[in-house]
Amino acid sequence: MKPLGPIPAGFEVIDGELAISGRKASDLAAEAGRTPLFVYSRAMIEERVARLRAAMPDRLRINYAIKANSYAPLLDQLAGLVDGLDIASGGELAMVEAAGVAGERVSFAGPGKRDAELEAAIRAGVTLNLEGENEARRALAIGEKLGVTPRLAIRVNPDFELKGSGMKMGGGAKPFGVDAERVPALAKEIIGAGCEFRGLHIFTGSQALDADAVIETQANTLDLAHRIASEAGLDLPKLNMGGGYGIPYFNGDTPLDIERVGAALEERFANLPDTLVGAELFIELGRYIVGEAGVYLTRILDRKESHGETYLVTDGGLHHQLAASGNFGTVVRRNYPLAIASHFGAEPTEVANVVGCLCTPLDRLADKAHLPHAEVGDLVAVFCAGAYGASASPSAFLGQGPAEEMLV
Amino acid sequence: MKPLGPIPAGFEVIDGELAISGRKASDLAAEAGRTPLFVYSRAMIEERVARLRAAMPDRLRINYAIKANSYAPLLDQLAGLVDGLDIASGGELAMVEAAGVAGERVSFAGPGKRDAELEAAIRAGVTLNLEGENEARRALAIGEKLGVTPRLAIRVNPDFELKGSGMKMGGGAKPFGVDAERVPALAKEIIGAGCEFRGLHIFTGSQALDADAVIETQANTLDLAHRIASEAGLDLPKLNMGGGYGIPYFNGDTPLDIERVGAALEERFANLPDTLVGAELFIELGRYIVGEAGVYLTRILDRKESHGETYLVTDGGLHHQLAASGNFGTVVRRNYPLAIASHFGAEPTEVANVVGCLCTPLDRLADKAHLPHAEVGDLVAVFCAGAYGASASPSAFLGQGPAEEMLV
Repeated sequence: MKPLGPIPAGFEVIDGELAISGRKASDLAAEAGRTPLFVYSRAMIEERVARLRAAMPDRLRINYAIKANSYAPLLDQLAGLVDGLDIASGGELAMVEAAGVAGERVSFAGPGKRDAELEAAIRAGVTLNLEGENEARRALAIGEKLGVTPRLAIRVNPDFELKGSGMKMGGGAKPFGVDAERVPALAKEIIGAGCEFRGLHIFTGSQALDADAVIETQANTLDLAHRIASEAGLDLPKLNMGGGYGIPYFNGDTPLDIERVGAALEERFANLPDTLVGAELFIELGRYIVGEAGVYLTRILDRKESHGETYLVTDGGLHHQLAASGNFGTVVRRNYPLAIASHFGAEPTEVANVVGCLCTPLDRLADKAHLPHAEVGDLVAVFCAGAYGASASPSAFLGQGPAEEMLV
Repeated sequence: MKPLGPIPAGFEVIDGELAISGRKASDLAAEAGRTPLFVYSRAMIEERVARLRAAMPDRLRINYAIKANSYAPLLDQLAGLVDGLDIASGGELAMVEAAGVAGERVSFAGPGKRDAELEAAIRAGVTLNLEGENEARRALAIGEKLGVTPRLAIRVNPDFELKGSGMKMGGGAKPFGVDAERVPALAKEIIGAGCEFRGLHIFTGSQALDADAVIETQANTLDLAHRIASEAGLDLPKLNMGGGYGIPYFNGDTPLDIERVGAALEERFANLPDTLVGAELFIELGRYIVGEAGVYLTRILDRKESHGETYLVTDGGLHHQLAASGNFGTVVRRNYPLAIASHFGAEPTEVANVVGCLCTPLDRLADKAHLPHAEVGDLVAVFCAGAYGASASPSAFLGQGPAEEMLV
């Protein structure tokens, strides 16, 4: 038997079934007309943002990184809840434009921006987080050509990392941003060239659960921003302090104590150096805002035995849940939080493997999990499906196609 | 420095550039109108099938498993070269129907088949490789309802594995097929129920490079088929012996000696037991047929330095090349075969990292590779991109969208 990850708080049982935003899994599947299905809870997203606002200093602005989930109705909701949106491609720019978000509220990071993407972003008044000197010069030239003053920030490759983070994006050689020691010169260059300078972007890592590590990294980030600003001889108009707030996926993971993170930040904000005291200070979060608010519902197509093991074969799989299958950015496969949605909260009575419909041994949603007995037709729920689920999975694999999505 | 995988034979240099089917990379990219781009070589696919035919016994039929690559023009080509096509979903059934392939030549395996998929396959005269007793009964009931005699084979979960294979699909408890000891009873049941019995499907693993392992597994497969047939008291009309022929991806990998595999099979075929002597004998290959015939071309958008390392940032990435980035079914990331297509065959002069355009540290196409100097605008080629590239990658990730594809 292998443990399942912890089911996020906020889900109910109605008539013995999992309920999301007060609606039973079977009703949601019926409304969608087919399974599999991603269901995102509007209320849980709203509560999450409210809790963040309450925990963080008032002056801290909160951005949503849409790469986590860019489902249009969810973007529409978040556009009204957060201060800004972060994008990573021209495709994502089109999405935020479709959601009616002003370019002023959008920033664009990503190491490989095409000329056409730079041009569209500059036209739209989006802030470009510059990933290097070449990109800076390309952006200035495009601004010149268009007759538009580009809004430029510099993404810094910091000389420290976010300890314990799932993905490190700082410390040592990196394809992202500009090494910290080269940033002052670049800042002076682009300001001299007449851009609208939008400060710095310092992103150190993602998916951290340890409050001490986040607190230390945020302190280092403020220190680094001050050092760079001092060396460049300027006050920063803005500072994007990155993200990194994680959510529990696996057995033994505990939630990040954001109240403690917020209190530490409050203390730092009370003593900001001159270079930062007038800056707009941001964090950018994706997974933390939407990850736990999403559930993937898939129906059991077969129940079979092989050499004494039970297999629940579902109509879903890794084509929608690449990370849950253990095939995305993880070395050792561990079980995500998962439940039999049709018997939510029932006592486990058997050990079963939950697999997807794909003809590959990689397609496993739960390995040797302790679950209540389930039969053909029952629904399975995979939790923590709100971020990097639908958009980060190979939906066309084996001719399958995308899942339904709903915001309820 | 980390070694790159071996570049498959069959590519040329023209004017210092990589050429595929006699056409320069830059011309192909110009014709496509944009990068990134998958290019598949018609001639290399044809030669691969011809070499297989020459190496394998005359009576062995060769099927193509379209999950490896279902690009429509490539399917059209392969439909004319191979004996049959293997599909894994209703979506893939629609693709082979669009290619004009008769259902008689198609078989359908996959652990989670929906009723609608069973119905479409039975109507089309496709052979169903049954994954279990429940599926057998559902297929018979659907055939009854439609007034169509279903063509049914049984997928066997063998009690042995393909040694050294990249993915094991036999040996111990598995979600695929029916445990070998339960197959004779199921065969009698479905024959008694009046189906058109199409024999057995025994698939043990994929991506093996060791001829001895393949030879041993094929021998075991024939023995197991004979044991099952004897116990059921019948002669087998067909036997799908599975696939498993691998291609070299990584430094140190050597090609599978298919001539030796074919000679061993020839010997076995000369001494087939009564139960198999009249059977149509098949293998099903995907990756082996198309994998080496495909190249992914992506353009360098930036060349940058960080802490002494050089990064070539391309307009492609893991959204088209999940496996090459090391994020699909691999534990330790190793470099795929990769080259600077614009300077193909030139001496390496520097160590560089080749990364994709996605804003994630997972997006790396080559790590510390020894390459000729490349600049912005040059094309990079990732080889072995013909199988499980476009279709097995999360193309919508970060708002990117699919790559172009061409068969030349």
